[in-house]
Amino acid sequence: MYINKEIEPADDVVELIVNSVDILDGDILVIAQKIISKQEGQTVDLSSITPSLLAEGISSQYQKDPRVVELILRESKKIVRMRNGIIIVETNHGFVCANAGIDESNVPNGYATLLPKNPDASAKSIQKKVFDKTKKSVAVIIADTFGRPFRMGQTNSAIGISGITPILDYTGTLDSFNNVLRVTAIAVADEICGAAELVMKKTTKCPVTIIRGYDFSNNSCSVDTLIRPEHNDLFR
Amino acid sequence: MYINKEIEPADDVVELIVNSVDILDGDILVIAQKIISKQEGQTVDLSSITPSLLAEGISSQYQKDPRVVELILRESKKIVRMRNGIIIVETNHGFVCANAGIDESNVPNGYATLLPKNPDASAKSIQKKVFDKTKKSVAVIIADTFGRPFRMGQTNSAIGISGITPILDYTGTLDSFNNVLRVTAIAVADEICGAAELVMKKTTKCPVTIIRGYDFSNNSCSVDTLIRPEHNDLFR
Repeated sequence: MYINKEIEPADDVVELIVNSVDILDGDILVIAQKIISKQEGQTVDLSSITPSLLAEGISSQYQKDPRVVELILRESKKIVRMRNGIIIVETNHGFVCANAGIDESNVPNGYATLLPKNPDASAKSIQKKVFDKTKKSVAVIIADTFGRPFRMGQTNSAIGISGITPILDYTGTLDSFNNVLRVTAIAVADEICGAAELVMKKTTKCPVTIIRGYDFSNNSCSVDTLIRPEHNDLFR
Repeated sequence: MYINKEIEPADDVVELIVNSVDILDGDILVIAQKIISKQEGQTVDLSSITPSLLAEGISSQYQKDPRVVELILRESKKIVRMRNGIIIVETNHGFVCANAGIDESNVPNGYATLLPKNPDASAKSIQKKVFDKTKKSVAVIIADTFGRPFRMGQTNSAIGISGITPILDYTGTLDSFNNVLRVTAIAVADEICGAAELVMKKTTKCPVTIIRGYDFSNNSCSVDTLIRPEHNDLFR
């Protein structure tokens, strides 16, 4: 779905969505994090940021703007890896990603966007507004592109969820030989974000994609389900 | 696409595919690794495997069948992590995944499947056979479900590729503010596998999915492009 304007805090994102496409019951709206961040005022004027000495120190090693490093530190619980010019952190939400999801693309020079403060709440609010305007029950996933260990290239991943169970768990079901499947839990929310990314692309003004006709369940709907606890992570 | 038989080495997978669906130019066929492994005779009778002392030792700690551990070791270049009952290896192909992709589901009790020996070659051979039978030019991706650090749940990932460039690189292109996008390279092959998984599901007999209408490029087509070199990996 194309939106031909730069999103600002005064915009009503749901109004823009429902005006440009017919919504059906059971649709999954995948929305690029960037427009949610812009609408929620998470765009930062870098000239307003005074870097700490730590941010200055890191930026001296990393060829990054010290004000951006300062934002990365503020948005993070901990630094997970810092090497080869790359800073991987655990964000305050719990996502492990580069630069705390802070991004200087698709904003004017001298600005950066932060991730939404509470992406699950953002998704829930959009879901509710869609229902209020259209009387259609949809699921909403807010997506960002994250890199990953072991594999090159980024993929779109869910950072906020409402109305869809993010993991489809096959544990205990039977395979075609009547063996019990032991450990297969599919992160369908991330696969849906990936499918949506194929349509959105990065440089077009297409920040919302509808996934239609996918049968999903709807309980325990938080992106926290997708965050691997540190004690259960062999790579932190 | 449903295939109502257990695949065996005598089967012609491409014949089964082209008999059950009309193929169009530009289709992307995503094929579950399991049927390729079965067709290529990569199903192992565990009673034929004599575990090494190392495999016996590991299995004594890990509550795994020592014959399966032996297969994991044979299929791997190195053990990347071994903890909490989980064995993450780098396979002989270079994939970092649990158990070297060896799997006891959807095979008779007492058997296990290995990954295809050369999944790129498998994909290329299928692509060529599809063309020979239908005169349609398609891309082929062989997919398996891998877990990942930081996030719960598995996602479908490409393990063999022919006819599609797996990474779409935006480096140097301009965003909507005419800033140069610095580092955005999207692993579209993995996103396509994820999209296909949403259709395949695990317990149905649907091992092939067609992704239609996605505009992709076709050069430098090897899954090796998706394998992050160790020197470039902060998590190995």
